[in-house]
Amino acid sequence: MADSRFNTVALIGLGLIGSSIARAVRETLPETALRGHDADPAVRARAAEIGLVDAVAETAGAAVEGADLVIFCVPVGAMAAAAEATAGHLAPGAVISDVGSSKSGVAAALRHALSDATIVPAHPVAGTENSGPDAGFASLFRGRWCILTPEEGTDPGAVARLSAFWSALGARVEVMDAAHHDLVLAVTSHLPHLIAYTIVGTASDIERVTEGEVIKYSAGGFRDFTRIAASNPTMWRDIFLSNKQAVLETLQRFSEDLFLLQRAIRDDDGETLFNLFTRTRAIRRGIVEQGQDVARPDFGRQMEAGAPARDEQKEP
Amino acid sequence: MADSRFNTVALIGLGLIGSSIARAVRETLPETALRGHDADPAVRARAAEIGLVDAVAETAGAAVEGADLVIFCVPVGAMAAAAEATAGHLAPGAVISDVGSSKSGVAAALRHALSDATIVPAHPVAGTENSGPDAGFASLFRGRWCILTPEEGTDPGAVARLSAFWSALGARVEVMDAAHHDLVLAVTSHLPHLIAYTIVGTASDIERVTEGEVIKYSAGGFRDFTRIAASNPTMWRDIFLSNKQAVLETLQRFSEDLFLLQRAIRDDDGETLFNLFTRTRAIRRGIVEQGQDVARPDFGRQMEAGAPARDEQKEP
Repeated sequence: MADSRFNTVALIGLGLIGSSIARAVRETLPETALRGHDADPAVRARAAEIGLVDAVAETAGAAVEGADLVIFCVPVGAMAAAAEATAGHLAPGAVISDVGSSKSGVAAALRHALSDATIVPAHPVAGTENSGPDAGFASLFRGRWCILTPEEGTDPGAVARLSAFWSALGARVEVMDAAHHDLVLAVTSHLPHLIAYTIVGTASDIERVTEGEVIKYSAGGFRDFTRIAASNPTMWRDIFLSNKQAVLETLQRFSEDLFLLQRAIRDDDGETLFNLFTRTRAIRRGIVEQGQDVARPDFGRQMEAGAPARDEQKEP
Repeated sequence: MADSRFNTVALIGLGLIGSSIARAVRETLPETALRGHDADPAVRARAAEIGLVDAVAETAGAAVEGADLVIFCVPVGAMAAAAEATAGHLAPGAVISDVGSSKSGVAAALRHALSDATIVPAHPVAGTENSGPDAGFASLFRGRWCILTPEEGTDPGAVARLSAFWSALGARVEVMDAAHHDLVLAVTSHLPHLIAYTIVGTASDIERVTEGEVIKYSAGGFRDFTRIAASNPTMWRDIFLSNKQAVLETLQRFSEDLFLLQRAIRDDDGETLFNLFTRTRAIRRGIVEQGQDVARPDFGRQMEAGAPARDEQKEP
């Protein structure tokens, strides 16, 4: 794999993920040339102002010229148009990728727009609730998983080069079938976001409880949901529409489970509640043990008034 | 209000909340004598070992003798038995309180067991996912709300003294009708916990996605739910059964809202999704502005591999 590194990376879309990739590349692959474009002129201006990439191009076509890696970092509903804008401008042999949170639909859109290109769809499972070029940071992908979903028959060399790129940025790389990715992420990401959006909406609509009360007493649990319900609305609208089948399937399962709990409460069936609540503790333990969340209580939140961060807590 | 401070505080139950009260009293009201009891001998032994209170009593009755403030810090389903165990042992004029997350049922249980006592039910809206005498910390209540729900006709002096006690521990105090408390908390705490428990259960049950995959890719949103779904199972079983009506009412509203979103996804109705997702952002902003959560992205999680804490993030 001599000389397998990408020389020039073009980022189409300079929001949270695109700008985080740019910062991570600067830090870990400083010899790589970075080019970027964003459909929003204000974002382009800001990217130029903070020197996010070496050159901010006015069009997606201009941004990708000469690049040997092109990454589309736009909401999944905007992938098709972004890819179309680069058709005819791609360098021969360029590897085309993206960061979309749903993969089957995006892969089809990229393939349709760029029929002859070498396409390796990717999904770095990382993010925050913030958006825009100022929200990114270099360490966003460190220790997180990046899932590649190449079609059967994709050049293994291209997959290996993209895998090495993400590894350099600190991510752990996994290769997976796009349809399976979409089901797994429906469970671990899309359904949680849908539920969070719903409950935050519900809470603000209940007539006998004011929005002020909801905010005031949110530390009882509700505030945890508001974080992901503050995520980018365009991005999430697109994800739900793009991964419709898997989202609806997991949502159906969730609703059934919720009805069972509803019935258990109505029937004073404490045993069913207790058994579930005991089982769910084990999952949390697995997540913490595998380094996918912090062990500190309350996410290690350090409030102004201030609970101290504690590195270990004993369970009795 | 000269001499209105409590001289001797008895804590019945020495888990997360009881032990946090003990630590906070030591820090902010060091002249106060502290007595404690826990139904679990192992917890009593541990409390004595770490010097949590001045005296660990073998029975609840012995613990409350001579105390002018008694706080029941046990799961709401255990309040009745704990209160009964102190009947006949209470000092004349003692103020009786609790920390239960539902108030109407607990107030009735306390009143039934201790018919002549001065009872001021309370609920500090604070906690972590951890349990037991080692999980508590002195700053748990700082900047959080503590809601008092005295019955009509309760001695205002007792309410004022308990209010001053919680203020000394750093809490902000609110007085509210018990039924209204139960509805507000159903929205801001009980429903979120029920949803979190459900989704964590659902995720671990979907056959085509392994538990290993759920854990591995949990950073996409799921892990946020696992924190509160790791809370004390006994405590939460009791809360749902004790606040049944309000929980079922809010759950019904949530289910209706979820069905609307489900329909919007099925119908490709992006506008409905986008509008809700935009509205929910504002609630998050309110919570952060009012100091009920940290402004840092991702709760300021500082992973081992590590995203830096950032104090401000710009929205584009």
